[in-house]
Order: sequence, then structure tokens, then C-alpha cells
Amino acid sequence: MTIDLASAQTIARVLTEALPYIRRFAGKTMVIKYGGNAMKDDDMIASFARDIVLMKLVGINPVVVHGGGPQIGSHLERLGKKSEFIEGMRVTDEETMDVVEMMLGGLVNKAVVSALNQQGGRAVGLTGKDGGLIRARKLLIKGQDIGQVGEIQSIDPRVVNHLEAGGFIPVIAPVGVGEHGEAFNINADVAAGKLAAVLQAEKLMLLTNTQGVLDKQGKVLTGLSVQQVESLIDDGTIHGGMLPKIRCALDAVNSGVKSAHIIDGRITHSVLLELFTDEGIGTLIRG
Amino acid sequence: MTIDLASAQTIARVLTEALPYIRRFAGKTMVIKYGGNAMKDDDMIASFARDIVLMKLVGINPVVVHGGGPQIGSHLERLGKKSEFIEGMRVTDEETMDVVEMMLGGLVNKAVVSALNQQGGRAVGLTGKDGGLIRARKLLIKGQDIGQVGEIQSIDPRVVNHLEAGGFIPVIAPVGVGEHGEAFNINADVAAGKLAAVLQAEKLMLLTNTQGVLDKQGKVLTGLSVQQVESLIDDGTIHGGMLPKIRCALDAVNSGVKSAHIIDGRITHSVLLELFTDEGIGTLIRG
Amino acid sequence: MTIDLASAQTIARVLTEALPYIRRFAGKTMVIKYGGNAMKDDDMIASFARDIVLMKLVGINPVVVHGGGPQIGSHLERLGKKSEFIEGMRVTDEETMDVVEMMLGGLVNKAVVSALNQQGGRAVGLTGKDGGLIRARKLLIKGQDIGQVGEIQSIDPRVVNHLEAGGFIPVIAPVGVGEHGEAFNINADVAAGKLAAVLQAEKLMLLTNTQGVLDKQGKVLTGLSVQQVESLIDDGTIHGGMLPKIRCALDAVNSGVKSAHIIDGRITHSVLLELFTDEGIGTLIRG
Amino acid sequence: MTIDLASAQTIARVLTEALPYIRRFAGKTMVIKYGGNAMKDDDMIASFARDIVLMKLVGINPVVVHGGGPQIGSHLERLGKKSEFIEGMRVTDEETMDVVEMMLGGLVNKAVVSALNQQGGRAVGLTGKDGGLIRARKLLIKGQDIGQVGEIQSIDPRVVNHLEAGGFIPVIAPVGVGEHGEAFNINADVAAGKLAAVLQAEKLMLLTNTQGVLDKQGKVLTGLSVQQVESLIDDGTIHGGMLPKIRCALDAVNSGVKSAHIIDGRITHSVLLELFTDEGIGTLIRG
Amino acid sequence: MTIDLASAQTIARVLTEALPYIRRFAGKTMVIKYGGNAMKDDDMIASFARDIVLMKLVGINPVVVHGGGPQIGSHLERLGKKSEFIEGMRVTDEETMDVVEMMLGGLVNKAVVSALNQQGGRAVGLTGKDGGLIRARKLLIKGQDIGQVGEIQSIDPRVVNHLEAGGFIPVIAPVGVGEHGEAFNINADVAAGKLAAVLQAEKLMLLTNTQGVLDKQGKVLTGLSVQQVESLIDDGTIHGGMLPKIRCALDAVNSGVKSAHIIDGRITHSVLLELFTDEGIGTLIRG
Amino acid sequence: MTIDLASAQTIARVLTEALPYIRRFAGKTMVIKYGGNAMKDDDMIASFARDIVLMKLVGINPVVVHGGGPQIGSHLERLGKKSEFIEGMRVTDEETMDVVEMMLGGLVNKAVVSALNQQGGRAVGLTGKDGGLIRARKLLIKGQDIGQVGEIQSIDPRVVNHLEAGGFIPVIAPVGVGEHGEAFNINADVAAGKLAAVLQAEKLMLLTNTQGVLDKQGKVLTGLSVQQVESLIDDGTIHGGMLPKIRCALDAVNSGVKSAHIIDGRITHSVLLELFTDEGIGTLIRG
Repeated sequence: MTIDLASAQTIARVLTEALPYIRRFAGKTMVIKYGGNAMKDDDMIASFARDIVLMKLVGINPVVVHGGGPQIGSHLERLGKKSEFIEGMRVTDEETMDVVEMMLGGLVNKAVVSALNQQGGRAVGLTGKDGGLIRARKLLIKGQDIGQVGEIQSIDPRVVNHLEAGGFIPVIAPVGVGEHGEAFNINADVAAGKLAAVLQAEKLMLLTNTQGVLDKQGKVLTGLSVQQVESLIDDGTIHGGMLPKIRCALDAVNSGVKSAHIIDGRITHSVLLELFTDEGIGTLIRG
Repeated sequence: MTIDLASAQTIARVLTEALPYIRRFAGKTMVIKYGGNAMKDDDMIASFARDIVLMKLVGINPVVVHGGGPQIGSHLERLGKKSEFIEGMRVTDEETMDVVEMMLGGLVNKAVVSALNQQGGRAVGLTGKDGGLIRARKLLIKGQDIGQVGEIQSIDPRVVNHLEAGGFIPVIAPVGVGEHGEAFNINADVAAGKLAAVLQAEKLMLLTNTQGVLDKQGKVLTGLSVQQVESLIDDGTIHGGMLPKIRCALDAVNSGVKSAHIIDGRITHSVLLELFTDEGIGTLIRG
Repeated sequence: MTIDLASAQTIARVLTEALPYIRRFAGKTMVIKYGGNAMKDDDMIASFARDIVLMKLVGINPVVVHGGGPQIGSHLERLGKKSEFIEGMRVTDEETMDVVEMMLGGLVNKAVVSALNQQGGRAVGLTGKDGGLIRARKLLIKGQDIGQVGEIQSIDPRVVNHLEAGGFIPVIAPVGVGEHGEAFNINADVAAGKLAAVLQAEKLMLLTNTQGVLDKQGKVLTGLSVQQVESLIDDGTIHGGMLPKIRCALDAVNSGVKSAHIIDGRITHSVLLELFTDEGIGTLIRG
Repeated sequence: MTIDLASAQTIARVLTEALPYIRRFAGKTMVIKYGGNAMKDDDMIASFARDIVLMKLVGINPVVVHGGGPQIGSHLERLGKKSEFIEGMRVTDEETMDVVEMMLGGLVNKAVVSALNQQGGRAVGLTGKDGGLIRARKLLIKGQDIGQVGEIQSIDPRVVNHLEAGGFIPVIAPVGVGEHGEAFNINADVAAGKLAAVLQAEKLMLLTNTQGVLDKQGKVLTGLSVQQVESLIDDGTIHGGMLPKIRCALDAVNSGVKSAHIIDGRITHSVLLELFTDEGIGTLIRG
Repeated sequence: MTIDLASAQTIARVLTEALPYIRRFAGKTMVIKYGGNAMKDDDMIASFARDIVLMKLVGINPVVVHGGGPQIGSHLERLGKKSEFIEGMRVTDEETMDVVEMMLGGLVNKAVVSALNQQGGRAVGLTGKDGGLIRARKLLIKGQDIGQVGEIQSIDPRVVNHLEAGGFIPVIAPVGVGEHGEAFNINADVAAGKLAAVLQAEKLMLLTNTQGVLDKQGKVLTGLSVQQVESLIDDGTIHGGMLPKIRCALDAVNSGVKSAHIIDGRITHSVLLELFTDEGIGTLIRG
Repeated sequence: MTIDLASAQTIARVLTEALPYIRRFAGKTMVIKYGGNAMKDDDMIASFARDIVLMKLVGINPVVVHGGGPQIGSHLERLGKKSEFIEGMRVTDEETMDVVEMMLGGLVNKAVVSALNQQGGRAVGLTGKDGGLIRARKLLIKGQDIGQVGEIQSIDPRVVNHLEAGGFIPVIAPVGVGEHGEAFNINADVAAGKLAAVLQAEKLMLLTNTQGVLDKQGKVLTGLSVQQVESLIDDGTIHGGMLPKIRCALDAVNSGVKSAHIIDGRITHSVLLELFTDEGIGTLIRG
């Protein structure tokens, strides 16, 4: 690969202009939820990976939590298993849990790890079982047992901290471990939010396939305080699929994370754009 | 759980008798290849896990490399895919490679990790992609391309060393990563042997489902020198499936590993028995 | 030394059964008062040493405080000096103090150190003079000066902490140092108790030649709370020679030591038995 | 300061394109000679400072050596002192040496330090006296004593290494110290070259006010080997003021510095352009 | 240099007599304001330097803050510029500020550094610009702008702490840096006092050319409490040029510095005499 | 304790004159053999202790090895045991060995430790048993077994290095430990010499009760090379009790110790005088 002089001049000019923006987050931890929809093709993954490796290079400590719903669904289909959902949660019998764990921990996780390493990072993949990272227990939906769906009981961040200290980028699949060593399917937004809280992260970024929180006119709302978010929930502006995401964001901010962001992961460089603009992109919730 | 006085006395007596055996390996690294046949039921895995956690507790640094052939085979069958083998190597098209990676990295790896953690260890699972651990390239079998079957090009042990230094037990699935980030199916014995060499391990233990190397009368041979092993290969005593295992052992010993052991993994506590008897169990090859 | 397969199997089975018991004290400090009566022959000392080295090997930090009354007495006799006791305290003129210091610091201390090293430990002997460990002043018995008998003024644990951090086992002779550098004869139980308090030890174990605290029917009392101990003192159940030992134990527990134990040092492996049974052996006082 | 979305997108795109170029020098030391002509106005200094701070931020260790000839000249003039040069060297009597030291160490050095800190760096200024960095002795020009002009005897890099390790950017004024503590005026190119050698730097960059080494047709020569440079000296292509600079570059490269660069310091971002283009700008001499 | 036996005996005797005095300040930080009057000739500077290097050698951490008024004045005169003072403060236009910075940071600072290094120390010179050490803003005198005279806003002691940890002696010229990177002329006593407070120094020593604080009879007052000093200010005993020095001393003591000392810098070894006599020399103010 | 101004001035002047002499040994290890004759009264011990603590304070690492022959002899007498010597070696039966160990390790060692601590040092006493420091075996004198007299097999300096690193002064009684944990009586000069070699000390100082090596006219010889010493042995100038001391000195120098010194320990401050005079006192042997 070569760069001509004109391009190099642009790079140099742009880099030095961005300097104050890069500098202000050096040494900070950022937890990024990277959704299954934003990893649909190799180019999208490569672009995301470049952003994350760049963050690491300029001294930020990114921690990636990924989902993988679409990939799980299509493998279950391949096996001839029907997916069933209750309140948006996948009913997870034992065979389904095996597929979840295989797909998240074995395939999706390593695809993200490998993409980061291809860009020069040193990523290490983890599930909640590794180092006892995410301890979970069965989550009942309105008292109903829907199998190995779990809620987080506690997080032991030592393995994440140790990898960060060694210059590695932790990439986490949202699988929890029960008291008998059994696996639990955990919501990736929830896992990212709790992790951000335990790590006292500077930012929680939830990459979605929406533009952010919209007002009743369809305009993106940004710079919301905790109180404003609560009003928007009360008056029904925030509803549906956005509601649980917003709850994760609020919980994180209420637990000491400086700010939470709902960002459109379909936009190229969305993670960096968030860092390099003052109000950011998408919806920001301030602590 | 409670222990009565008589049992406690036995424990105390046995422990102190074993003291010189425990002590002599403190601070040493041991690479253990844990085969798919030795993880057939939960009790076998739990027993193996207790042995490994105990090793860690008394100051030994165990590194586990596991296989998973049987588990891969049965999942492929479940998907209606036929397994094909050439020279004992599984022909590995892309879909098969996905299953290999999912099963080894997502299910088998985490089952071992979780079993170790249930016994009080702090295990972290890795594939060759994590931290760029195992770099591989396509392995041609007599010039024939059989898909994503790989040979090891190089090993970057930093992630293993860093985890060891933090008190974690590394558990490694033998998946390699190619120069474009693609996955390769690696023989687990080979991976264990190379890793032992790079880590300058004290011992390489290959857990198998045989008693060790047998002489022509079917008696286990033990305490072999490199020269003796080579004669036994030449005169055909060592042949068939044992041959590649022995090659891994020889390579390791020739690269500075103190000794390599072919052990019957079906025996309870085989790993500890190896440590606590002078000649060990199974076949030992000295460097 | 060799171990046959059957023994090795027992060792392996026993070790793994004991694993949860070994694990729970890893990283904790335990102060053990090792009395002169429990070091009567070389086998007893060797057995005690094996127990302590094993504790160190599995990650516990033992600190040994030893006595030496019988040895002092017989050397004084050898010199033709009569021993005199007031309220159970040896009247300690200057020549006697020299013998105490020689015997405790020079002979008994080094015998314990050497026994530990013979079992593969790395022990270092100290008296209260080394590193200014135990600062003492004259103890008057009912206003009477009985020579160089001292009470502890303060403990400077830096030398103990530094040796522990280097992997050494500290072995301490209960000699204190006065403000002019002079030696004081200190009660070993008291020294062990204070040291346990300053080190914020997990356990204080006082090895005695009784079974523990007995109730009026001669049955060993165990699992006592501080309040219960005080009642037993008040109603005279605890009296005589047991009284000062119990006071040391109470003081330690009241200063933050998790539990104190009065154990029969004549029983083989008494120290390990204490760790490997739930209620322990002898009398336990909980904090 | 704010950045709009379009600019942020450019920044993000450019940054990620530059990633492989940024990454390859992480952890490397670069010594940059920053000449008096390139610091003529505050904007030039600020631009240079941004480049250096950016280098530090992405993990490169820049070490700046500055000149200050013009500033010295004008202050001497202000004092009514005539400057005299022999073989291009300033005749340096004691009063002149005071002015050199005041100007370089007190004004120019701190201007560079302050400019770096304004851009978010943590720079620390040094002269060769600080930490005994540059030991020098009188340099005779054809046997003639021209005052306090010095040649470097030895370099003690400890203060530079210590500051680097603490995250500081060392900024060095080329004043040497003699055996009686007296100051010597040192050529800045020479100081930069020797420092690069002692620090085993990746690159030595000499910022000049020429385009680089020109061939007889006035075209910039780049990618020269040591042998090629020597031929160009022999045939007179390299001559005049370029000759001593080239000698510094050659000495550095012959002492283990990977490459030396003669760069036009008048070009904005010249330092970064050097990093972000494959052949670099100006003249490169390879080791 | 050689020492005869008789001298060596004196040295040995004196050293060991001084031992308790040397010992009691080991590991403590002392901030010494070294005035321009006490550096009038090379012998005085060399003597001061020996005292400071000796302090460092015996484990004390000296931090030197120097002035340079006389040197600045004479250079301004040399340039034909008239010095003007308002309320004892030098009116500092831009050209004057340049001279202040050149003289303090370039000449005086390096003379002190060099003198310390000649005695075997490893000194590093700093101004308030280096490492962002002293942040300052314009000081108005009764609402009047007298140019670049500054008051301290904040001190970032990291560069001082880092140099101390590396075994270097920090030597500080009292130049502050404003928010735009501009230089400010800071009173050296004030800088020393604030630095002592931020570093939580054991002692602040202000070297002056008086004997200390005198009572109305002209006798040196020593061992003053904060309250006594305030009475002496109220009744006019302390007045004139001593007043601002005393204010620095009081501020330091009120901010946690253990004691402040007004010492006659003209006396040889005044700094050591302060350490080696119980009441010290000059005036001591206790915290 | 107080010091008047005149004394303080002397201290300050003397200290600063001695500065270059103090400085040149900072960070160096010195092994000092402190003989039983030089500890005859408390004042001599206190004076020696002050010298050693001063060395430590100014950055030298002293290691003290002491003897104790006279003390052992008088205690044996007190016990009614006759001392017997063969070739200058004490015949050491088991009871005698107990007395040696008690006296050296328990009384003499702790007297030296306590004296050092009284002067503000932090000394820790060791025998060759502690940390397995001195491993020994039986020494036969012309084939004759004279009991527990030992020769050094190996030295494990880890405990000494660890204590030094913690700021402690190691004080060593010359008792070795055999392979069964038994004690051996070791010659103190030999122990000091070997220790100096293993620690790669700067100096070995043997304190004796002679002036040094005398020539045939009774004049002290100084500054000897290894060759000169060998000639002096050959021609009989060095003979008798000096011979084994000289052998220790030669062995040390031949093993990398920079210089060895035979010094008159009866002279006050002899250790410091050795440091503060150029040729030292007594006899110096250069490596």
C-alpha cells in the first residue's frame, strides 16, 4: 500500500485538526455494544475494526460486547429448529442454548476478534464463562420459565482489566454462567450496560439500526438528561424496541458511566463520529 | 460439605507424603492435550478439572489444549453433512470449518473453561485467533487441497504468558488463523506440542485413549530416549495412529521440552498420577 | 524415594477431594504458636515442618512463633542455675536472659528453620530484635521486678511482611528488645497473639499439650463466641494454665483476627486437620 | 471548538486509512532536529507542535533537538556585539556563550516546550547540562581556538529515557557541559545525530530549509544507501552547507539508527508527511 | 585529591556523631529557596551545591527554587533598559519578560544545575513551563497592570515527583505559564512556598541575606508558632521586606508543611546547619 | 541530644569535604568480617554499628559477617568443657556445636543486630541455615574427623539480596547447614570471603587485631597485587595466623571482588577510615 503526497497532506492536516478530540479521551474505557445487524458483511466488520483499533492506538481502552441474533436464527433454521419468542426473548431450550453458545462464542466472537487483529489490534475473545466474567441466573418472564435465558447476578471484571493492562482488546460474547457452570443467554445491551457500570466507563455506546431516539415528529433527540428520558418514557415517545435499550443506557448512567449513546451502527465510522463531534451522533444521555 | 476427622487425617497424611512430588514442579509450565474421548461425560470432565486446578494451586502452570473430534462429527451429522477423511485428516470445506470453529471455540472450549472454574480455577478460553496466538497456512496432503486444514507457521505466546502471569489457566482450542484472518483446523496434538516448545514447558502430556506406546508383546514401554523412539519407529513397533502423536512428542523434546508423555486419559487422575509416580504412567520420552 | 501406582492414586484422589478446603485459605496469613512440648523429637518437628511447608506451597502464608521453655530449663540446669518462677513467669536475671536468648534465638529457632528447609521450605528465623520486630519493656508482676521479663509495647511487622513477599517463611523466637537494645523474655502465646493482630491474620493457632478448652465434664468445647468464652471464664470453667492462653486468643479475635484456635499439638498433622475439617479440632473462638 | 458531521466523517475516514502507517512506528523513538528557520512565527511552531504531540499520542516517542542561530544573532546585535564566523562556526567568547545559553536554554527551548504543552503534550526542556546529558570539550578549528565551541565527548541518556518513560516529551537545547561545568556551544545537527545513535532511534529527521539533497539537475534524491551518499560526496554533488548535515546523517545510520531524513521544515506537517508516505519526503538515507 | 589519616579520622568521628541528625530526615522532601544574593560567586554556589548533593546522598529529597533578580537587573542595564518597580514588583513588559526568562531559565538555572552536577549530583533544571509545572495568571497591583507579573493558579507536581523518583534533583526557575502559553514572572519565595505545600514538604527553607526575623532589640527570633508570628506582624515587629517572606512561610505551614525557616544564606553551609542543630539557625516557624 | 553551632559548622564542613569519598561507593556492596576481638565492650560495638549504619545511610550496602570465638570459649568453660584445637580448628563435638550455634546465632548475632538498630539501622540476623544461605559439609583436617567443622559447598544469596533490597542490613553468623539439616562450624573469614565473591562485592574487609600484613621490618604493606601477595607467601613474609586470612582475601579477589582489606579492627572507625583515605588503612589487595 502506498500513499501519495497529496493524500498524506490531507491525513496530516486532518489528524492534527482532530488532535484535541483524540486527546480528551486518552486513558478512558469505552464499552461498545456491536449488534448483529452491523456485522452483515466483511466490509462493515473491517470498517468497525479499523475504528476500534484506532481508538486503542490513540490510548482509549475499547471493550466490545457483541450480539449475534441473526446468525443464531439462521443456524437454528439450518438445523430445522423453530425459533419462538416471548416478550421479545428467545425461548431457549438446551439444544438452542448450545447453538447460542457455539454461534456467539465460537463463530461471531472470533470473527470480530480476527477482524480486529487483521487491522493490527491484539484482541482476545471472551464469553461470560471465561474468568467467571458474567455470573447469571434464570430470568423468569412474568413468572414463566423460558429456558436458559438469564439475568446478570454479578460481574467479575478482573479478566477484562488484566487483558486491558496487557494491551489487548477484550471482545465479549453475552453468555452468562450459572452456579452449576451452565450457560445462560444474556441480552447483549444489558451485558454492555452492566459491564460499563462495573468498569466505570467513560461512555457506553449502543450501536443499533435506528438513528437514535426520535421525537413524535421523527427528529433525533440528543443531549438528554436522565429526567428528560424519564418524561419521554412516561409520555410514550420512547416505546417498543427502543425501551429496553434506553433502560440499559439509563442504568449505566445512573451507576456512574459518564454518558450513554444510542448510535446508528449502519453509518460508516459511527463510533469515531461519536468521538469527533461535540454533540455526537444519535442520542446521548448524560449522567 | 463436611469432612470427618478420620478423612482429614488421611488427607493430611497423604498430602505431606506427596509434598516432595508436589514441590519439584512448582513454577513449571506443563502443556496438557486433553482429547475429545476423555471428556465424554461430566464426571470425567469434573475430575480432570479438579486435577488441573490442583496443579495451579500448588504453583504449577498448566496450559490445556483440547480436541473435539467426536463433538464436531456428531454436529455435522445433525446438519446432515457427511464427514470425509483423507490420510486421517478431515476434509474441511467452509461450512465444515464453521462447525469446527463453533464447536471447538464455542462449546467444547467453554465446557472445559466452565468445569475448571467450577472447581475454583480461573480459566480463560482461547482459540488460535485470540491475541494472534496460532498463525497457520493451508496444509496440502500429498499435494492435495482438502480445504481449511492448516499447519502451524508460528506461535505468538504473549496472550498465554500474560494470562498465566495473572493467575489464569489458558484453555486453547486448536484453530489457527491465516494471513487474511481465515480459520484453519489444526491437529490438537500438533498444537500442544508446538506450544510446549515455544513456552519451553517442563512437560508435554498427551492424553489418549490407549495405555501408551506398546511393545510387540503389548506391554507399555516407558522411559524412552529419543534414539529408542526412532528405532521403534524404524522397526514398525510404533505405527498407525500412534505415529503422529509420537512425532509431536519427539518434536517437542527436540525443541527443549524436558519430557513428553503419552498417557491414558481414561484413567481417573491420570495427570496427577503422572506427577506423583517416579516413572509416571504410560510412555515417557526424555529429552 | 518412589511411590507406587496405588499410592499415587490415593494421593490424587485425596488431594482433589481436599481441593475446596485447600483453596479457601489461599493468600491468607496464619500465625501458629509452636510450643516447646511439640518439638520433643525430630520426627515431631519434621512432621510439623511438612505441614507448614505444604501450607506455604498451596498459597497460605504461615508465620511460626515458637517457645522453648523445656530447652531453656535443661540448659540452665546444665549450668547449675536454679529456675525460679513467680506467677508462672520465670525470674530472669541477666545470665538467665542470655541463656533464654541463646537457646531460643540460636538453637530452637534454627532447629525449626532447618526442619522447614529440609522439607523444601525457605524459612528465615527472627527474634524480636531483628528488624526491630518486637519492642518490649519490663513487666512487673504485682509491682515486683523479676528481671528481664517483658511485655510487648509495639510490633513493627515490616521484616515479616518483606520476608513473606519474598516467599520466605518467618520463624519467630519470642525475644523482645527494650529501648536500650536490651533483650526481654516474652511469653510466646502473647507474642503470637499480638503478631496475628498486627498482621490481621485469618487464624491464630495455639498448639498446646491439651485437647483444648474442656467443659466441666471434660468434653472439648468448640465454636465459642467471645461472649461464651467470657462466661466460661466467669464461672470458672476456664482457669489455671488455660486462662492466659485464652486471653491471648480473645485479644487476637477482638483485634480483628478471624478466629483463634487452641489445638492439641501432640496430634500428628494437627495444623492441617484444623484446616481440613469444618469445625476444626480443639477449641475455636470466633471473632 | 466544534466539528460538524461532514468534517468528522472526513476525519474518521482519513484516520482509519492512515491506521497502518500510524501503527508501524508505535513504540519507536524518533529524534527530530527542529531548526531556527522553521520556528519563525507562532503558527509554524504551533503546527510543528501539533505534529509532535500527535506522534506521542499514537505511541511514538519523539525527542526534539532545536537550534536557534537566528535568535542568538539578533540578541547579540541588540547588545551591540558583532558575530564572527570561522568555517561556519560562530566564534564564541564568554559573553557570547552566555547569550547562546540564555537564548537556547531559556527562551527558544521554553517556547518549544510551551507550544507542545499548548497542544496537550507534556514536554520538558533540557540542555546538555541537565542530568549531565551532553558532555563536551573544546573543538579546535584547524588547531585554532574559537572559544566555547564544543564537540561531544559522550552522552548520558538516562534523563531522556526517564522522561520518556514518564510520558514526557524531551526538548533539548544543544549546549554541552565541560569537565569544569562550563558551557559549550554545540552544533544542533550533530547533537541530534549523536542522540539518535545513543538512543538507537528508528529515525533521525533533520528539518532544514532546503528540499533535501539535490542531484546536479536540481532534483531531490531519495532512498540513498550509505555507499551512494559517499559517491555523491566524492563527485561533489553533495557539498557546501549540506555536507555537515549529511555527515551527521551518515554517522547516525552507521551507528544503528534505521534511517536518517533530510526534510524541508518549511512545508507544513513535514514530520507527519515523512511518516505517512512510503518513500517519505526529502532525502532518506537507509542504514 | 587525597585525605590523610588524621583528616579521615575527623571525618569518621564527625559523620558518626551527626548520624542521628542525618537519619531523621531520610526520605523527606525539603524545598529550598536559593536567592540571587547567595550565588554571587562560584565558591558560594559550589558550597551550596555540595550541601544539597550531600542531602540527596543521605536520602533527603531536596527541591531547589532559585531567584535571580540581580542577574536580571544587570542584563537589562546592559541592554540599556531601565528597571521600574511598583510595590517592590518589577514592571515587566514583553522585552523584560524575555530577559527574565532567558536569565532565570537559561543562565541562572543552568549554573545551579551545573554546580550540583559538578559535586556529583544529577540535577535537572525546570521552569514553570516544563511539564506544565506552574500555571499562572496576571497579578494586578492595586488594580494596576504592570505587565507579565504573575500569581500562581495551580501547580502540577508530576514532573517534580517523576524526577525525584528517578534520583534527580529538581532545580526550578520561578517562571509561570499562562493559559495561552505566555510566560509570567513569579516571585521566587512564593513559588517555593506553594511548591512546598503541594509536595507536602517536611521543611521550607528560605535563604535570605538577613539573619532571620529580628525582635525590636535586633535579636533573632526562633521557634515561633503561627500565632506568635501573627502577633509580631500586628505589632509591627515584622515589617518591610520581611513581611512577604513571612507570609510565604505562614501559608506553607498552614498548608501542611511541617516547618518553615528564614535562614541567612550568606553563612557557609547554612542549609546543613539548619539540619544539624536542634533549634536550627535563623527563624523557624512551626506548623 | 543537642549540637551547638560550632559543632554543626564542623559537621557541615567535614561532611561536604568527604562528599566525593562518600559518593564513589554509593550502591556498592561491602562484606565486612567483624571479629570477636573487636566486640569486647559495648562502646566498641556501638562505634562499629554507627559506622555501618552510616554506610547504609549514604547508599552503600554493608553485609556483616561476625565471629565469636572468645564468647564460645568462655561459655564452654562455664559448662566445664575443655576446648581442643587441631591446626587452629576447634574440635567440635555435638554439645560443642550446640554451644557454637547458640552463642553465634543467639547471642553474638543478636548483640550486633541490636547495636545496629540502636543506631537507627534495620538489621536482620541470619545464620547459614536461614533461607539455606550457607550449605556446608564436613571438613577433614589431614584426613581426620574433628566433628562438626565444615567447609562451604555453596551459597544461596537470595535471602541476603532480598533483605538488602528491602533496606535491611544482613548480619551473618558463620554456621553452615549440611544435607540432613545439621549445623557446621564455619570459619568466619572464609564465610565472609565466599559471600563477597558470590555477591560480587566491591570490597571485602577483614577486621583483625593486627595492623595488617607486615614486611620483615614490621612495616605495614599496602596496595599489594595478587602476584606480590604470592611472593610474600613464598618467601615466608606472610605466615602463621595471617596466612589463612590472606588466602580468603586472595580467593575473593580472584573471584571478582574488587579489593580485599586486612584492617586493624581495634582502631576506632576503622571501616570508615578505609573508605575515606585513598590508600586506606591496613593492607589492601587489588584484583
